[in-house]
Amino acid sequence: MDRAACVERDLADPLADRRDAFVLPPGVLYLDGNSLGALPHGVAARLQAVVEQEWGNGLIRSWNDAGWVDLPARVAQRLAPLVGADADEVAVGDSTSVDLFKVLAAARTLRSDRRVLVTEQGNFPTDLYVAEGLARLLGDVEVRSVASADLPAALTPDVAVLLLTHVDYRNGRRHDAAALTAAAHAVGALTVWDLAHSAGALDVDLHGWNADFAVGCSYKYLNGGPGAPGWLYAARRWHDTASTPIQGWFGHAEPFAFGPGYVPAADARRFLAGTPHVLSTAALEQALHAFDGVKPSDLDAKARSLTDTFVALVDERCGGEVEVASPRDPAVRGAQVALRHPRAYALTQALIGRGVIGDHRPPDLVRLGFAPLYVRHVDVYDAVEILADLLATGAWDRPEFHRRRTVT
Amino acid sequence: MDRAACVERDLADPLADRRDAFVLPPGVLYLDGNSLGALPHGVAARLQAVVEQEWGNGLIRSWNDAGWVDLPARVAQRLAPLVGADADEVAVGDSTSVDLFKVLAAARTLRSDRRVLVTEQGNFPTDLYVAEGLARLLGDVEVRSVASADLPAALTPDVAVLLLTHVDYRNGRRHDAAALTAAAHAVGALTVWDLAHSAGALDVDLHGWNADFAVGCSYKYLNGGPGAPGWLYAARRWHDTASTPIQGWFGHAEPFAFGPGYVPAADARRFLAGTPHVLSTAALEQALHAFDGVKPSDLDAKARSLTDTFVALVDERCGGEVEVASPRDPAVRGAQVALRHPRAYALTQALIGRGVIGDHRPPDLVRLGFAPLYVRHVDVYDAVEILADLLATGAWDRPEFHRRRTVT
Repeated sequence: MDRAACVERDLADPLADRRDAFVLPPGVLYLDGNSLGALPHGVAARLQAVVEQEWGNGLIRSWNDAGWVDLPARVAQRLAPLVGADADEVAVGDSTSVDLFKVLAAARTLRSDRRVLVTEQGNFPTDLYVAEGLARLLGDVEVRSVASADLPAALTPDVAVLLLTHVDYRNGRRHDAAALTAAAHAVGALTVWDLAHSAGALDVDLHGWNADFAVGCSYKYLNGGPGAPGWLYAARRWHDTASTPIQGWFGHAEPFAFGPGYVPAADARRFLAGTPHVLSTAALEQALHAFDGVKPSDLDAKARSLTDTFVALVDERCGGEVEVASPRDPAVRGAQVALRHPRAYALTQALIGRGVIGDHRPPDLVRLGFAPLYVRHVDVYDAVEILADLLATGAWDRPEFHRRRTVT
Repeated sequence: MDRAACVERDLADPLADRRDAFVLPPGVLYLDGNSLGALPHGVAARLQAVVEQEWGNGLIRSWNDAGWVDLPARVAQRLAPLVGADADEVAVGDSTSVDLFKVLAAARTLRSDRRVLVTEQGNFPTDLYVAEGLARLLGDVEVRSVASADLPAALTPDVAVLLLTHVDYRNGRRHDAAALTAAAHAVGALTVWDLAHSAGALDVDLHGWNADFAVGCSYKYLNGGPGAPGWLYAARRWHDTASTPIQGWFGHAEPFAFGPGYVPAADARRFLAGTPHVLSTAALEQALHAFDGVKPSDLDAKARSLTDTFVALVDERCGGEVEVASPRDPAVRGAQVALRHPRAYALTQALIGRGVIGDHRPPDLVRLGFAPLYVRHVDVYDAVEILADLLATGAWDRPEFHRRRTVT
């Protein structure tokens, strides 16, 4: 496959024009949108207006006049179609970790006669930390982490909740969410899906999966900015009975009534807690305009095309030097590809030094993400060219590339 | 007292120059810094740089290069001296509600042989909601809300935690935090102080009070912007044993090691959860520069002077028309004064219509806050002049001032 073939693919790409919605620094091939999405145009101006006009001039009046009070709901409205949900099933706020705590506690309370929470060994560490923290707090919950292959067998009738991350953060393996949800339901368990590495990149279909709860991150493929708010999904069928463990005023049916007793909002808004982070949430609202009119299936098709192209080019150009550690079947792969190399840290740093930004996941992975809105097939081609050159020349093996940094 | 006397007081005010650190819209007397602090100069530029340079250009590299990874710790360092704490005892992140949930759960776990959480009737509603939510989740905790006067008697040996808000959000009554903390300790209970209406305005002295835990809000007197991150305090003596219920990766001893087991950070950082909201946290970091070199006792003295001036002027000019609903002794009053009026909502709207921005707290209070960094004694004078005029002429009683808005 030559560069012209990649140009062809870009010409045929229905999402090609979306790249113009982003600020992309010159000289950079950005393959880390799975860690922090690129900056959409319009966000800087929007934040400036929020700070100078809404905060500086409007002051407290902006809760009404600038609609801060509806900000989480407005973002939910933009986000819901990207994950196959309705807006009143999505609550935007806090962080993914806090949101996960909330829905795990809610799901467990809905199955309070059961004590087991099943998850996967090698799930995203924070997900395991949060689950174990909840178990420790409640005292009567057992977290059972099993190998991926053992998940079906682990779904026994004592299981309250199945907690899984849709796409593995290291190797990019994608679960069959519908099948696993059905298997959980078959034993009476509820499901909590972590969509951090899926939403905004893949065909996420929470209604189609019949999912109960989910959480996601909006600073990766959703491009909401560093530390953008997390979000959660609560299927409509649980709106009457699911309760948040963190009863903050923004989840109250009438937040500004300052009533003495907590009355939860009627829909997923009941999972909001404190005052929304207006600056971060406004940035996210603006950023989501880049998805206007985009369907999850469009994103998925583009992600498959990009990762297929990458895998094929790596096989062609770098065979033997690195191993593709991600599934080769795009149906079971996310929008990212991991390459295995014995000195993956240095190789990652060398790529970054040449403008190919990905990241390292210990011990031996170079992880590259292919955000469908702004990565082109020619970017994939050019990145592999640089990778092949680094490997062929050994130029990755310089002392400066082995020096450790805090964040890798 | 005439206006010249207020000018005199401003001339003698050691914090007078701090007003220049803020953007204050023309034609506004802003007496709602207890609800949303004014915009400090420099915040807009800082956010612009974070968005355009750090996010847009630096992308994922900014975790290292722009020091995002240390942002919560840097803010803690600025905040700690304002509340009489050391930086490693303060964790900045999430919201006040979520932070309250965390420290309440931690305190309760440290006193797991006791089942009672004592708080005050009329405590800030969210504080009660959060406490009741935790009690419901744990099942074996009883929330006992008593009248202020009955607090000492309520401290019995079955009390695990005393949860109080230092300054009452409606009438501004200030608790004797040192005395109540000692009383709680005398029966073996721990204390959780909500400093939302204190930090940045009063002489908060967590070490001097011998406090165990505290939470605060940074969008009120700390001027961090709408929905700025919450913060919490955990006294050093609890660092080894206190555990957060929400074990997120940012509270891990080595967040970027992605290790399989949760190992809490050695200090209050263990209470952080998910990825920090970088935009909101950077705004707060910048905003706190307005406090450079300011001691909590300076803030307290200015707050007393402003509220004393206000009460004296209201007595002089509006006597009989409104009632001062806040304590008259500044030692037991926060930086805010509430006025009672049978049609307080309309009176608040009429004041806002004339540029005096305060807020209404149902059923019958007009609440006015006196942020010590930017409110002048002449502002107090001018505000009372407008209030007196509205009351004398009955101009507050127009239909448009009775119309209800979402946020009051």
